[in-house]
Amino acid sequence: MLENQIMEIGKSAKSASYLLAGISTEIKNHALQAMARALEERAEVILSANRQDMDEGRTKGLSDAILDRLLLTRDRIKDMSEGLRELIAIPDPIGEITRMSARPNGLRVGKMRVPLGVVGIIYEARPNVTVDAAGLCLKAGNAVILRGGSEALNSNKALTNVISTAATGAGIPEGAIQLIPTAEREAANMMMTMIEYIDVLIPRGGAGLIKTVTAQATVPVLQTGVGNCHIYLEEDADPDMALNIVVNAKTQRPGVCNALETLLVNAKAAAEILPPIAAALQEKGVELRGCPRTREIVSGCLPATEDDWGTEYLGFILAVKIVDDLDEAIKHIHKYGTGHSEAIITESYRKASLFVQRVDAAAVFVNASTRFTDGRQFGFGAEIGISTQKLHARGPMGVEELTSSKFIILGNGQIRRS
Amino acid sequence: MLENQIMEIGKSAKSASYLLAGISTEIKNHALQAMARALEERAEVILSANRQDMDEGRTKGLSDAILDRLLLTRDRIKDMSEGLRELIAIPDPIGEITRMSARPNGLRVGKMRVPLGVVGIIYEARPNVTVDAAGLCLKAGNAVILRGGSEALNSNKALTNVISTAATGAGIPEGAIQLIPTAEREAANMMMTMIEYIDVLIPRGGAGLIKTVTAQATVPVLQTGVGNCHIYLEEDADPDMALNIVVNAKTQRPGVCNALETLLVNAKAAAEILPPIAAALQEKGVELRGCPRTREIVSGCLPATEDDWGTEYLGFILAVKIVDDLDEAIKHIHKYGTGHSEAIITESYRKASLFVQRVDAAAVFVNASTRFTDGRQFGFGAEIGISTQKLHARGPMGVEELTSSKFIILGNGQIRRS
Repeated sequence: MLENQIMEIGKSAKSASYLLAGISTEIKNHALQAMARALEERAEVILSANRQDMDEGRTKGLSDAILDRLLLTRDRIKDMSEGLRELIAIPDPIGEITRMSARPNGLRVGKMRVPLGVVGIIYEARPNVTVDAAGLCLKAGNAVILRGGSEALNSNKALTNVISTAATGAGIPEGAIQLIPTAEREAANMMMTMIEYIDVLIPRGGAGLIKTVTAQATVPVLQTGVGNCHIYLEEDADPDMALNIVVNAKTQRPGVCNALETLLVNAKAAAEILPPIAAALQEKGVELRGCPRTREIVSGCLPATEDDWGTEYLGFILAVKIVDDLDEAIKHIHKYGTGHSEAIITESYRKASLFVQRVDAAAVFVNASTRFTDGRQFGFGAEIGISTQKLHARGPMGVEELTSSKFIILGNGQIRRS
Repeated sequence: MLENQIMEIGKSAKSASYLLAGISTEIKNHALQAMARALEERAEVILSANRQDMDEGRTKGLSDAILDRLLLTRDRIKDMSEGLRELIAIPDPIGEITRMSARPNGLRVGKMRVPLGVVGIIYEARPNVTVDAAGLCLKAGNAVILRGGSEALNSNKALTNVISTAATGAGIPEGAIQLIPTAEREAANMMMTMIEYIDVLIPRGGAGLIKTVTAQATVPVLQTGVGNCHIYLEEDADPDMALNIVVNAKTQRPGVCNALETLLVNAKAAAEILPPIAAALQEKGVELRGCPRTREIVSGCLPATEDDWGTEYLGFILAVKIVDDLDEAIKHIHKYGTGHSEAIITESYRKASLFVQRVDAAAVFVNASTRFTDGRQFGFGAEIGISTQKLHARGPMGVEELTSSKFIILGNGQIRRS
C-alpha cells in the first residue's frame, strides 16, 4: 500500500520531468511568481497547519531549538516568497550550449545543459526547505520529491499543496512538486533505491542523516558536508587583518558550517600576533583550547586534546595550534579538515599561491573570512547546500549544479568506418 | 592482514594525491613518455606474466572470448604505449580557472579545476585497462588504485610494476599508481567503503559488476552503463541515408554499447522505407524481430516479445517497431532506453529540434550513426568509459571528467557583516 503510493509518486515525477525539460523560462518564472503570491495569500492555512505541528512537537517534548526551527510566522513565509522571487532573476541554465565544435567528417558535436530529471530531497525540521528546494528544482527544470522531517509533516503538506497548486495553475505539469505524505521511515528508504524514478538524492541535515543516506542509497547522492574550517596565520600576516578576520570567522555566526573551528599560527609570529587575537576572542566569550606552545603565550587557554582538532564546535569554542611552517599547516588541514573552507592570512605572494594550489577543499581563501562560502556571497544566488564531495559539484550548489548535460550530434548522414 | 595491506595502499595513494595535485604538466608528460617506453622495453616480462595467466585460464576452462580479452601480444602492448603517448598531446586540465569574477566588496571569486584525488578502478578481464586507466588518471593529476580481474592478476602485476617504476623514475610520487595485489573478493569490498582514502570509484565491466558496486559502495561512483540504443526514422527520412545509418549502427561493430538495438519507424513511411532496410540487414545476417505491423511488410521477420524492447543484444539481432508519430517514438525510447545514444533520421527542422530537446540520453543524434558516441570520435581523446548517469559526467569520460573543482577566493581583509 505504502509501496504503491511511493511508486506512483516516483512515476508521476518521472513523467512530469520529461515535460518540464521542455518548459520555457517564461512559464517557469511565471510559476515561481504564482507560488510566491500563493504563499502570501494562503498564509493562514499554512500557519494553522504549523500550529498543529508545534502543538504536537511540544507534547512530544521537542527541544526549544527544534521548535524554533519548526516555527512558521508571517515573516518567515514572506522570506520564502522572497526566495522564490529571487530565483526569477537568475538566468535559466537549461538549453545552454556549453561547447560545440565541428569534427573533420562534418559532424557537429555540442554539449547542452539539461535538467537532472527527478531530484529527491530528504531533509529535517525546517519547513522552509520545502519551498526553497521546490523553487530551485523548478528553475532548473527538475521534478522534485520532498521528504521532510516527521515533526513538520502538517506544515510541509500545507506548503506543498499551496505551491504545487499555484505551479500547476501557471502551466507546470502535475507531479513536478510532490511531498511524501507520510512520516513512515520506510518511505525514505524506498526513495534511496528508486533508481528508475529518482535521478539524484540530496540529503539536507545533520551528519547522521547524510551518513545514512550515503550508506543506503543506490540512487546517486549529492552530499552536503560538515565544516571543520581552519585559518592559518603566516609569519607575515598583517596583525590587524588577522584579528578582524579571525574574530569574524569565529563569532559572527558560530553555528554554521563555514565558521572557523581551528586557528593555526606560524611559530615565528605567534608571540606577537596571537595574544591580541586571543584577548579579542575571549572578550567575545570564546573558549580557547590550545596546544602546549599556545598555552605558553595565551593566558586562560585550556589544553586541547586530539579530539579538539577534529571537532566542529558550531559554538563559542576555538582550537588553536602553533605550527612551524606552511607545510605543517597544510598537513594539519588535510589530516583534520573536512574539505569545506580553509583560509590563509599572508602578505606573501608565494605563500598565498602555494596555499591556494595545495589545499584540497571546496573553498580556499586568501586574506578573507571563511564565512563567505555561500551561494549568495559568491554571487550565484540561492543554494541548496554546500557540497564537500568532489563529484559533480563542490562548494555552494545553486541552480546550475542542479543540472546535467547531454551531447547533441548533428550530422548529414555520417556513418562510422572504423 | 589483508585489511592492513589495503589500508596502506589507500593511505599511500592519498598522500601521493596531495603531491600529484601540484606536479607540473611537463613532469606528467615526461612520465607518460617514460611509461610508454618502459612497456615496450620490458615487453618480455609482461608477456611472460601473461602466459602464466593464459595457462591458468585454460586450466580453469575460461571461454575463448575471455581468453582472447586476456591475451597480450607485442602488438597489444604497442597499442597501450601509443595510448599513453596520445595523452601527452591532450591539454592538461589542472589549474584552469573556469570562471572568475569580482564581488561588490572586492573579493575575487574563482573556480579552479583540480584533480579528483584518489580514483579507484574496479574492472574485469582486459589487462589494457590497467595501463589506460593509469595514464588517464595520471594526466588528470589523480592517484589511482587498480583492482583488475582475478584471471589477469599476473599480467596486471607485471604491467603495474613496469609503469609505476617508470613513473616514479620520472618524478611522479610513490603511491600514485598502485594495484591491489590479490584476487580476494574482500579487497574489492574494502575499496567500496574506503571513503577516507578513495574519492571516486569507477567500475568498468558488465552490468553485474556495475550493479554490485553501485549497491555496495559508500564511496561516490561514476557509472558506465549499458546501451539499448534506438534509431527513429521519421516519415520524411531520406531513404538512402536511413539505410546507410541503420546498417552501420547495427552491423559495423554489433558487440559495443553504442550499436543499434531497436529500430523505430514512422507508420506513414514504413511501407516504403522499411523493406529495403530490412533486406539489407538480413543480407548482412541480422535477425529481425518485429511488432505485428512490421511483420506485415517485412518477410522473414520473427515476432518481437515485450522482452525484445528492453534487450541489449550486442549481436546480429535487431528489434523493429512501427510507431504512429514522433511522440510515440520518444515515449518508447524513454520507457525502454538506457539513456545512452538515440538518433532520429529526418529532413524536418522542427522534428529534429523536438527530438534533440525532448530525448533524455547521454548522446542525441540527428542524421548520424549512434556508433559515434566515443571520446575519440567526439574529439576529446581517450576515454575511461561512457557514463549514462546524470551526475558529474554524462557521455564519454576523458581526462576532464576525471577532475573536480575548488573555489578560490582572493581578498584583502574582507569580513562578513550579515
